[in-house]
Amino acid sequence: MKFRTLAIVLMATLTSGLCVAQTAVVEDFKPSTCNQPGQEYPQVNSQGYARFRVIAPNAQSIVVSLGLGGAKGGTPLAKAADGSWMGTTAGPMDEGFHYYHLTIDGGVFNDPGAMNYYGSTRWESGIEIPAHDKDFYALKDVPHGNVQQILFPSKSTNTSRRAFVYTPAGYDKNVKTKYPVLYLQHGWGEDETAWSNQGHANLIMDNLIAEGKIKPFIIVMTYGMTNEAKFGSIRSFTAKPFETVLVDELIPYIDANFRTIADKDHRAMAGLSMGGMETHAITLARPEAFSYYALLSGGIYTPDELKGKASPKLMFISCGSRENPDMVKKAAATLKEAGYNAVSFVSENTAHEFLTWRRSLKEVAPLLFQ
Amino acid sequence: MKFRTLAIVLMATLTSGLCVAQTAVVEDFKPSTCNQPGQEYPQVNSQGYARFRVIAPNAQSIVVSLGLGGAKGGTPLAKAADGSWMGTTAGPMDEGFHYYHLTIDGGVFNDPGAMNYYGSTRWESGIEIPAHDKDFYALKDVPHGNVQQILFPSKSTNTSRRAFVYTPAGYDKNVKTKYPVLYLQHGWGEDETAWSNQGHANLIMDNLIAEGKIKPFIIVMTYGMTNEAKFGSIRSFTAKPFETVLVDELIPYIDANFRTIADKDHRAMAGLSMGGMETHAITLARPEAFSYYALLSGGIYTPDELKGKASPKLMFISCGSRENPDMVKKAAATLKEAGYNAVSFVSENTAHEFLTWRRSLKEVAPLLFQ
Repeated sequence: MKFRTLAIVLMATLTSGLCVAQTAVVEDFKPSTCNQPGQEYPQVNSQGYARFRVIAPNAQSIVVSLGLGGAKGGTPLAKAADGSWMGTTAGPMDEGFHYYHLTIDGGVFNDPGAMNYYGSTRWESGIEIPAHDKDFYALKDVPHGNVQQILFPSKSTNTSRRAFVYTPAGYDKNVKTKYPVLYLQHGWGEDETAWSNQGHANLIMDNLIAEGKIKPFIIVMTYGMTNEAKFGSIRSFTAKPFETVLVDELIPYIDANFRTIADKDHRAMAGLSMGGMETHAITLARPEAFSYYALLSGGIYTPDELKGKASPKLMFISCGSRENPDMVKKAAATLKEAGYNAVSFVSENTAHEFLTWRRSLKEVAPLLFQ
Repeated sequence: MKFRTLAIVLMATLTSGLCVAQTAVVEDFKPSTCNQPGQEYPQVNSQGYARFRVIAPNAQSIVVSLGLGGAKGGTPLAKAADGSWMGTTAGPMDEGFHYYHLTIDGGVFNDPGAMNYYGSTRWESGIEIPAHDKDFYALKDVPHGNVQQILFPSKSTNTSRRAFVYTPAGYDKNVKTKYPVLYLQHGWGEDETAWSNQGHANLIMDNLIAEGKIKPFIIVMTYGMTNEAKFGSIRSFTAKPFETVLVDELIPYIDANFRTIADKDHRAMAGLSMGGMETHAITLARPEAFSYYALLSGGIYTPDELKGKASPKLMFISCGSRENPDMVKKAAATLKEAGYNAVSFVSENTAHEFLTWRRSLKEVAPLLFQ
C-alpha cells in the first residue's frame, strides 16, 4: 500500500513537471478501453494523447513504438524514483486502434497493461484512441449476432482450418431464413481473429441491422496466409493456395453447414490491405464465385482487368485519407466511366489502420446484396 | 525492489546448484505447441524439459517463472554472446499446460515467443509439455462442433455479457434435435476463454462424440467473477451475484436461443478451482436448476450440506495427484455411504493445472445425462 501511495505522489510530481513543457495537455487521462481487466495504464486523454506506465526497476531503457501522429518514431519512457517508467506521446494520436509494443533494453515485448491483438505476425499490444464517431462500433443494448469458431476440413492443406462466422441476431430462431454471405479477409501479419477483435465487425453489423440500415447477412472470416512455408514473408505471398482453400473448400463447407443463399449473387468478398490484394486476385480469377468486391486499403481494379468477364454488381474501393485517397477516387471514377458500378470511400484523418477499415465496413455493408 | 533482486540472486544460486545433477538432457527440443506462429522458442524436449530464448541485448537479468516440477522457483536465463538470453529448466516439467511469464529487470512481461492465455487476472504466456495421453484433446480429422461467442443481456449487472457456447457437430443440421447443457466455469483469474483455449473443451467433446463415448451435449462457458468492484481479489469473492447472472439470466437466454432440453434433469454445472466453489455454492442454493454437479480441484460436497434437498443424479469430485487426492476420494466415499451417486477422479502426476481439468472433463462427460 505504501508503494502505491508513493507511486501516486511521484506520478503527480512527474506529471506536473511534464506540464511545463506541454501546456496544452489536458489532464483527463483515463485507462484505454483496450487495457487488460483492472489495469490503469496505458491511458488516453480527451485530446488523443496516450500515456504509458511500465514497471521494470532495473531496465536501462524502454521505448513505446507509438509516437506523434501514428506509428512513426516512438515515445521513450523516463524512469521515476519508484522504479516505474512513464511517458506521454509528444502529441495527439490519430483516432482509432493502434498496434504497439515496447522495446525494453533492446528486446521487443508487449505492454503488460494492454490486451494483445494479432498483427505483424505476432500478438501485439493495442490501444484505442476514442473516435468522434465511435458509436457505430460500440457495444449497445441491441439484439446481438453471434461469432462462432468453426473448424473446416481442407484437403489442399491437409489440415482442419479455423474460421469465424458471424451470424446475425435471430439466425437461430428464423430457421427458414437463408442469408447472403460476405467473405472478409484480414491484412498481412493478422489472422482470422482480427475483424472481430480489432475490427468489431460483429458490433458494426449488430448496430447497422438494429438501425434498419442493412438486411442481415453472414460474415465469414478465415486465415488468408496459407503459404506458410515462408511464414510471414509478404514477398513470397501468392493468393493461389488461399483461392483453393476459400473457393473450393470453405465456401462449400459454409453453404453445407449454414443457411446461406448459395449463389454468386448473394456472395461478396472483401479484404483489407493484403486481404484486399487477395480479394482482387481471387475475384478476378474466380468470377463465378462472387458478385460484390471490396478492397479496403488494398489496391484498385482497372477496366482492363475486368474485360471479358461478367460485370460484378459492385466494386467498393477505400482507404484512409493519410494513404492514397486520390488513387482510390480516381480508380472508382475510371471504373464508372467504363460502365461499372464502383464506389470509393475515404476515411478522414486515418492511416493504414483499423478505424479506416471499420468505417469502410460500415460504408460498404449497406451496398451489398441490393 | 531489493526483494526482487535478492530473489533473483537466490533463485540463480538454487538453480546452479541443481544444474550439477543435470547430465541426461536429451537434445531433441522442438518448438512448444503454444508458440506464436513461426516462433522457434520456447522449446520442449521428449523428457519434458523446457528451454527458453529471449532477445534483449541490454537487459540485466531475465528469469522465467517456470522451474523444476511445476511453477515453483524459476529458471534464470543466461546471456549469450549474440545478445540473446537462454536457459533450460533444471528438470522435466509436469505434463500438460503451464502458465508463465518473464521477469525482465524486475518487471513482469510475457515471452514474445509464446501465445497468451488469460490466467492470474492477466494474459500470461503459456507452454505445453506434451502429455502421454494428449490424444484425447488433439485436433483430429473428425466432425467438429463450433464454439460461438454470444452476448447476452444481464439486468443485474447492467451489461451485455459474453459467453462461449459449444454446439456439437451436426447441431445446425439436426434442426429438430434438442440437447442437454453443461455450464462449465473457469478458475480464479481466468475468464470465459479458458476452457476453449487452455482446456480444449471443444476438442475433448469432438473426440468423445466421434468415438461414441458420449451423447452430444452443449457446453456454455461464461465469466464467473462478477463482483468486479474489487477486481481480481479472491477474498472479496462471493458466488451470489454470479448465481443471479447464471441461473436467472444466462440459463433462460440459452434455453430461448438454443435447442436445449430445458429442464433440471438435462442441465449440469461444473467448475474448476474457484469455478468449483461457485458450482458448490450455486448447485446447493438453486437445487431446482441442475441435476449433475462436478467440482474439479474445487472442493467437495458433504452429506450434511445436501440434507433436505433433492438428491442430484451425480456428484463428480476430482483433482490432480499433486493436490489433495485423499480428500477427494474420501469425500466421494462418504457421499456414497450416505446413499448419493458420487464419483471421484484423480489425475496422475498433475497439480492445480489444466491437464487435471482436461482429464476431469473427459472423465465426467460420459457420466452426464445418463
